[in-house]
Amino acid sequence: MKLIRFGLPGEEKPGVVTDAGMFDVSAFGEDYGEKFLATDGLTRLSAWFSAHAGECPQVPAGTRLGAPLQRPSKIICIGLNYADHARETNAAIPAEPIVFFKSTTALVGPNDDLVIPRNSQKTDWEVELAVVIGKKASYIEEKDALDYVAGYCLHNDYSERAFQIERGGQWVKGKSCDTFAPLGPWMATKDEIADVNNLRLWLTVNGQKMQDGNTSNFIFNVPFVVAYLSQFMTLLPGDVISTGTPAGVGLGMNPQVYIKAGDVIELGIDGLGTSKQTAVAFK
Amino acid sequence: MKLIRFGLPGEEKPGVVTDAGMFDVSAFGEDYGEKFLATDGLTRLSAWFSAHAGECPQVPAGTRLGAPLQRPSKIICIGLNYADHARETNAAIPAEPIVFFKSTTALVGPNDDLVIPRNSQKTDWEVELAVVIGKKASYIEEKDALDYVAGYCLHNDYSERAFQIERGGQWVKGKSCDTFAPLGPWMATKDEIADVNNLRLWLTVNGQKMQDGNTSNFIFNVPFVVAYLSQFMTLLPGDVISTGTPAGVGLGMNPQVYIKAGDVIELGIDGLGTSKQTAVAFK
Repeated sequence: MKLIRFGLPGEEKPGVVTDAGMFDVSAFGEDYGEKFLATDGLTRLSAWFSAHAGECPQVPAGTRLGAPLQRPSKIICIGLNYADHARETNAAIPAEPIVFFKSTTALVGPNDDLVIPRNSQKTDWEVELAVVIGKKASYIEEKDALDYVAGYCLHNDYSERAFQIERGGQWVKGKSCDTFAPLGPWMATKDEIADVNNLRLWLTVNGQKMQDGNTSNFIFNVPFVVAYLSQFMTLLPGDVISTGTPAGVGLGMNPQVYIKAGDVIELGIDGLGTSKQTAVAFK
Repeated sequence: MKLIRFGLPGEEKPGVVTDAGMFDVSAFGEDYGEKFLATDGLTRLSAWFSAHAGECPQVPAGTRLGAPLQRPSKIICIGLNYADHARETNAAIPAEPIVFFKSTTALVGPNDDLVIPRNSQKTDWEVELAVVIGKKASYIEEKDALDYVAGYCLHNDYSERAFQIERGGQWVKGKSCDTFAPLGPWMATKDEIADVNNLRLWLTVNGQKMQDGNTSNFIFNVPFVVAYLSQFMTLLPGDVISTGTPAGVGLGMNPQVYIKAGDVIELGIDGLGTSKQTAVAFK
């Protein structure tokens, strides 16, 4: 299944995408969040939709999409998880995953505007594969890790490089601005993705290809990362783990290139759709 | 007002502490969280309790307390915010606040056991003043910052120093283990605390005084920190900001001292009560 949420910000309704289009599944009666996932909502929704698809209204093309999940308990990000990206930022290849958080208030829909923060000079892009946790995970083993995964999304881990690097050392400050986490268009359930560690991902700015990588180049792959994180904290259903970005960010260019108002950023991952953000100045 | 939540983990009910004891205010019909604070719940509860105190059942002494707030959207921590603590850890005095997050899954009641994480050798204590946000704050000014504060709590920002420092650079890994955020006993509303930037705070381990500081020694005080954070992310009602710890942590000793199973950690802040955790081994 491919799950979407659509409608005005803060009033999103749940939907499902099929080859026939987008369908409103509000009648199922649950939104996509921690409780839905914790109570085997994916199985229940699948059965319900099989029986009721014909009664579900189509969602008109052009309807705004929200993030495909309700606000999670946390957004965890992995830093420098592609060797080419570590090299372009002059960072050492990490011996174990670098972990930081992003404020969940950064979450927006996949095609919402990117608001360049006040006083920002160095807003940058990062196409990433996001993993959505399906059940509570604590001290799990790598061989079992995918059992704890509900699905996957496209994510742009926007980053303000001055806030991240030049303002006191811990990265969260440059990762948490409003609109810095466009997620979606959809969450693909795990069964939709044959090999999560072999997906092409790409990003363009104003039509120019900036990033073009493949998750086969992960330093730490998805099962490893999920199991690893669960040694340090409890992962809850709906939690989002963003797995790092390949080479091609603005920080890595010479001279460096950052986002300015009016820029259009488009990105995609095999099987997870595409998203498009227009950068706007802070008002 | 002093707000508590009491009962079994996950089933806590709201209460109020007065000079006459602890009272169950379940009949008010709301738990203490984002929605309660965002809808002026403190004013409404105060009025309701004035009218209904006589009907509220007393909470028996010895009843377990939970964290005085429902799970917040985020727990934000300030690092190295007392000069003496920066010195003891051989860190430079920060030019601006160091910011990191703690997973909200770390939250427990004030007197719950501290579980030493699996494979931990360096679990450490940090008595801290926690600030609770009362209304949504984005790009606010220091002079207005206290208008966005609902109240204050006692917090022990437990930290695994090897996970924090020796495992990849970003601190969140050493701050987010289950039971690493005992909060409470109560949240004191802002009016209860005459000067939040002049409160004594202390911590003992097995009865021996380890930390004894005063928030008057903050490098960055409460209004500055709240306004500062709001430049980088939106603060939501119920969000917790832990403001850093004074000198006297295990990491700063020579030789370093860390928590072992059976240790009893007690801590307190003027006006915010005391809490007590017993360390237990991971099972």
